[in-house]
Amino acid sequence: MIIDNRGAACSVSDIARQAGIGKGSIYYYFKSREEILDALVTRTYGTMIDSCAAVIAGSSLPAVKKMALLFQSYYASIVNNSVDRYLHERQNAAIHQKSLAMILTALAPVEAEIIEQGNQEKVFDCSFPEEFSVIILAEFCFVFDAGIFDWTTQQMLKKLQALIEFLERSLPAPAGSFNFLLTFFES
Amino acid sequence: MIIDNRGAACSVSDIARQAGIGKGSIYYYFKSREEILDALVTRTYGTMIDSCAAVIAGSSLPAVKKMALLFQSYYASIVNNSVDRYLHERQNAAIHQKSLAMILTALAPVEAEIIEQGNQEKVFDCSFPEEFSVIILAEFCFVFDAGIFDWTTQQMLKKLQALIEFLERSLPAPAGSFNFLLTFFES
Repeated sequence: MIIDNRGAACSVSDIARQAGIGKGSIYYYFKSREEILDALVTRTYGTMIDSCAAVIAGSSLPAVKKMALLFQSYYASIVNNSVDRYLHERQNAAIHQKSLAMILTALAPVEAEIIEQGNQEKVFDCSFPEEFSVIILAEFCFVFDAGIFDWTTQQMLKKLQALIEFLERSLPAPAGSFNFLLTFFES
Repeated sequence: MIIDNRGAACSVSDIARQAGIGKGSIYYYFKSREEILDALVTRTYGTMIDSCAAVIAGSSLPAVKKMALLFQSYYASIVNNSVDRYLHERQNAAIHQKSLAMILTALAPVEAEIIEQGNQEKVFDCSFPEEFSVIILAEFCFVFDAGIFDWTTQQMLKKLQALIEFLERSLPAPAGSFNFLLTFFES
């Protein structure tokens, strides 16, 4: 593990020691501490996205249940993710922003495929699956990011209820299809 | 004007000279160049938000037309805004992020009031005006931000068409109510 568990910023020497290589060797690959964090974040989120995509690709569930599975996989990976708190440090804002754009851009086609499946199953009737996915993901990647906004529990709950109303009406989907979103919040 | 027009980063000395005060005096008020930019961005967007809110408060238009007016006022102010390109520089990412959160948080209640008016006029039937406004504003403040994403013209056009479908279905609103969004893009 390259990043320590104490929430403190690591020096390049710390990173080199934990990776078991000389500080000089690290600088052979990376120009700065920021470049190391950037590579680590890209790899961490890349793995997370690949894993979510694989779970969905391997599933034969109907669209509504597959959507729940996607959000479950996504939340399971961010909970176990140790880079997040570094991204919320002010000096790492550029890398944070890049990671949010990366997650949104990579998950949008995965979600779009689920919406297209729902269109074929005649439960949804969405004309813009990919663009619609971006609208949903902007909530998760930007509005619900604890490093950018500081919503109260009550505000978050209302945001999820609004998202459910929005999904049911505009996909459209049977009432209750997205109530699973509230369970993430309760746990 | 504190920021120059050449797209180059100003030194604190440049800023002091343009403001007609000594460099030492500037440091009496601000600790760093970043703190000056932060204050400038807060003031610029604060003025922009106040101006949008005043335009809406002074209007007696029906809700759908008032929504168009809000987006027109918003776009008119960001086009004339000289701080934007500084916010897209990597080292200013933290201030950029703060400014996006500030715009979203401040414009959400303005837009929510328009949605509530639409509910009263019986053209909309939205259970979560404020949260719904946040979903819309996340598109404008995050997804459409040219410093975060680099969409092609075709991708942007489809995103606006998807947003129109989403608004018409989920507010819900009469077909064509939000076609004005396409005109910003054409101009």
